[in-house]
Amino acid sequence: MKSTTTPNLDIQNEKHHFNLNLFNETTHNPSYASLTNNFDNINGLRDFCIPVNTYFPSKPVMDCLYDKIPDAIKYYPSSNNLITEYIANFSDIKDPKRIIAGNGSTEIISWLNSIFIKDSIFVPVPSFGRWTEEPTQLGTELHTIAYCDENEQSLSPKKFIEAVLQSKAKNAVICNPNNPTGSIFSRLELLYILDKLRHLDNIIIDESFIDFSAKTPQTIKNDVHLFPNAWVIKSLGKNVGLHGLRMGYAISNENNINRLKKHLPYWNINGISEMLLMLIQNEKTAYDESRIKVINDTKYLANRFSELTAFKIFPVNSNFIFARLDLQIDGEKLRNKLLQNHSCFIRNCENKLGSTKQYFRIATRTKQDVDFLITAIKHELTNI
Amino acid sequence: MKSTTTPNLDIQNEKHHFNLNLFNETTHNPSYASLTNNFDNINGLRDFCIPVNTYFPSKPVMDCLYDKIPDAIKYYPSSNNLITEYIANFSDIKDPKRIIAGNGSTEIISWLNSIFIKDSIFVPVPSFGRWTEEPTQLGTELHTIAYCDENEQSLSPKKFIEAVLQSKAKNAVICNPNNPTGSIFSRLELLYILDKLRHLDNIIIDESFIDFSAKTPQTIKNDVHLFPNAWVIKSLGKNVGLHGLRMGYAISNENNINRLKKHLPYWNINGISEMLLMLIQNEKTAYDESRIKVINDTKYLANRFSELTAFKIFPVNSNFIFARLDLQIDGEKLRNKLLQNHSCFIRNCENKLGSTKQYFRIATRTKQDVDFLITAIKHELTNI
Repeated sequence: MKSTTTPNLDIQNEKHHFNLNLFNETTHNPSYASLTNNFDNINGLRDFCIPVNTYFPSKPVMDCLYDKIPDAIKYYPSSNNLITEYIANFSDIKDPKRIIAGNGSTEIISWLNSIFIKDSIFVPVPSFGRWTEEPTQLGTELHTIAYCDENEQSLSPKKFIEAVLQSKAKNAVICNPNNPTGSIFSRLELLYILDKLRHLDNIIIDESFIDFSAKTPQTIKNDVHLFPNAWVIKSLGKNVGLHGLRMGYAISNENNINRLKKHLPYWNINGISEMLLMLIQNEKTAYDESRIKVINDTKYLANRFSELTAFKIFPVNSNFIFARLDLQIDGEKLRNKLLQNHSCFIRNCENKLGSTKQYFRIATRTKQDVDFLITAIKHELTNI
Repeated sequence: MKSTTTPNLDIQNEKHHFNLNLFNETTHNPSYASLTNNFDNINGLRDFCIPVNTYFPSKPVMDCLYDKIPDAIKYYPSSNNLITEYIANFSDIKDPKRIIAGNGSTEIISWLNSIFIKDSIFVPVPSFGRWTEEPTQLGTELHTIAYCDENEQSLSPKKFIEAVLQSKAKNAVICNPNNPTGSIFSRLELLYILDKLRHLDNIIIDESFIDFSAKTPQTIKNDVHLFPNAWVIKSLGKNVGLHGLRMGYAISNENNINRLKKHLPYWNINGISEMLLMLIQNEKTAYDESRIKVINDTKYLANRFSELTAFKIFPVNSNFIFARLDLQIDGEKLRNKLLQNHSCFIRNCENKLGSTKQYFRIATRTKQDVDFLITAIKHELTNI
C-alpha cells in the first residue's frame, strides 16, 4: 500500500481534492485509479474499501512476476484448461475438471446470471451488488430476505430454506461469509441447505472471502460437485493481493462446468495472471501464513472499532468488519469527511439493496493503518 | 521480440526441444508461453503466427506503463464507461456510447454467440476459429461459403449476399480483412452488403486487422450505428502490440450496445489494460507511423516469399500473408522442421474449417526476421 510510504499524520490538517461526484456515477465505489487520477495524485490515500490480502505475494514472487511481465503482455495466454490445473493445485481442489477459470469471479457471475439463471433468484441482502443488480437488469425476478440487527446479522439454515421455498424462486445465492455483513454458515449447515434445495435450477455459494474466515475455513470446495445444481464461486485476485489482474473461478460437477465452458471466451485469463498463477504454485505455505496474519489484523481492527461507542460491530468472519453508525451521525457525511480531511477511504453501504448509509464495511489493513483510521474517525466524531 | 537479442544463425544447426504434441491439444495454436516453458527456455524462438504490431507502443510509453503496473495490479480497474472514452478517442470513433469494451475481442464474440446469435449463422471460410467453432459448440447451425484459389481468395459482394440469402441463415459474419485469407471488401461494398442484409438478426464485421490494410483503412466504424443489426468487432491488444493484456471492443448503435452491456461483467478490463489505454491517448501519430511501418514490412514479407517457387501468395491486405504450399511438400512436416531446426514458429491452417495444412498464414515481422525465415525455409525445402 502507498500509505506505508506517507505515514504523515499532518495530512489530516490539509484539504485534499478528491472528486466526491464520482460516488454518484456508480452503484459500486469509484475506482482507486479514478480517485487518484490514475495513481498520479495519491495524496496519501488509504483504502479501507477493498478486502484484499496485503501480505501476499512475497517480494521475491513479485520480482519474478515483474521479470515475466514484458513477455506475458506480448503473447497470448494459455487456454483455460492449463490455468485450471494451476488453480486446482494452489487451492487444493481435487479435480481440475471441476473448475472453470474466470476473468475475476464477476465474469463467472455474469455468465451464470445470463445463461443459467432463469426466471427468479433468491438472495439474502445486503449482498454483493452483482447478485442483486445484474439479475434485476436482466429481468430475473429477485426475491430477498434481510439479514438484520436483531439476529446479529445471522440467518439460520432453517429460516433460509423456508424463505427460499416460500418464495418459489428457481435459483438461490449464498455468499459465505456474506459480503458485506460477514454472516457465515458452517460446512455442515451448507451441506444441509444444499441437500434440501436439490430441486432448484442452481444454488451458488460465493466463497470469495472464506479464506479469511478461520485458520481452517469451512469450505465446501471439495463437496460441491456431489450436488447436481450447486456451484462454488471464488474470487482469487483479492485473496492473492492483486485484484487489478482479474482472476476468479467456479467449481461444480463436470457436467455443469462443461456446459459453462461452451460459452466462456477462449483466452479469458490475461498473460500476467497466468504467470502469477504459475509462480505461486509453491507458495501455499506463504499463502497460509498471509491468511493468518490477515485474520489477526482483523481481530485488531474489530477491537479498535469497539472503542468507538458510535459504532455497533457485528460478528466478524472475514477480512472486513460490518459496523452500524448511530443514527445521530450522518454516514455519508462521515465518509466524505474522512476522505477529504484524512485521505481515508471507507465504504458505506448506501448503494447496496437492503442496507443504508449508516452501515459500513471496513476492510482489514495493517495495525498502523487501522490506528490512523481510528484516530481520524475519533477526530471527526468530536467535530460533527 | 526476443529474437532480436539472439540473432545467431548457428541455431539452425542445433536441435531444439519444442513439444510438438502441444499442437494436438487445441484447435488454436499452442501458446508461446507453453512452448517456451513460461518464457524460461525461449531458445531463440521466433514467432510468425500472431499478427501483432511490433512497432508500438514506444519505449517511453512502455516505461510509463511499467511504472504504473505496481499500482494497476493492486486496485480494481475502472468501469467499462470510462474505458470506452479512452477507446473512442484513440480509435477516432465519434461517440463512446456506441462502444463496449471487451477482455479481448473474443469476449465480445462469445457474448454475441451466446446471447444474440440464435438458430443459424453464415461465415465465409476459412475464418477466425471462434466464428466457426463456438457456434457449432453452442448448437447454432453453421452455413459457409469457401474463399477459393480460383478467385484469388476474394468474394464479390453480390456472391456473398446471394449465398447468405440462399442459406436462410439469420446471422452473418464478415472478417474484413479476412483472417487468414486476407480477402477484403471496400467500405462502399460493405455498406451495400449491410443495406441488403438489414433483415438479418445480426451482421458482424470483424475489423480486427483493418488498421494494417492500407494507409487509410476502409473502415465502417463510424457508419455501423446507422444499421439496426450491424456490429463492428475490433481486437485492440494485437494492434497496440500487447495482446497478452486482452483488449478489444464492439461498435454498434446505442440500443444494441446497451443490450449487450446488461450481460457483460462489470470489471472486465484489467487494471494494466486501463493504464495502457490512458497512456496512449496522445500517441495517435506514433500509432499511425507504426501502422505504416508494418504495412511496409508486409510488402517486404510478400516480396521475399514470392522468391519461393513452392509457395503461391494471395493478395495481401493485412499484417500477414496467406500462402499455399505445393502439394509435393507436406505442410505439417515443413512447419515442424522450421520449429525444430530453426526455432521459427509458423502457422499452417490445418485446424481451420475450410483450409488444409498446405495453407499458411505468416505474420509480418521485421525485415531481419523475415530474412531469417526465408533462409530457413529455403534450407528445409532443399532437404525435404
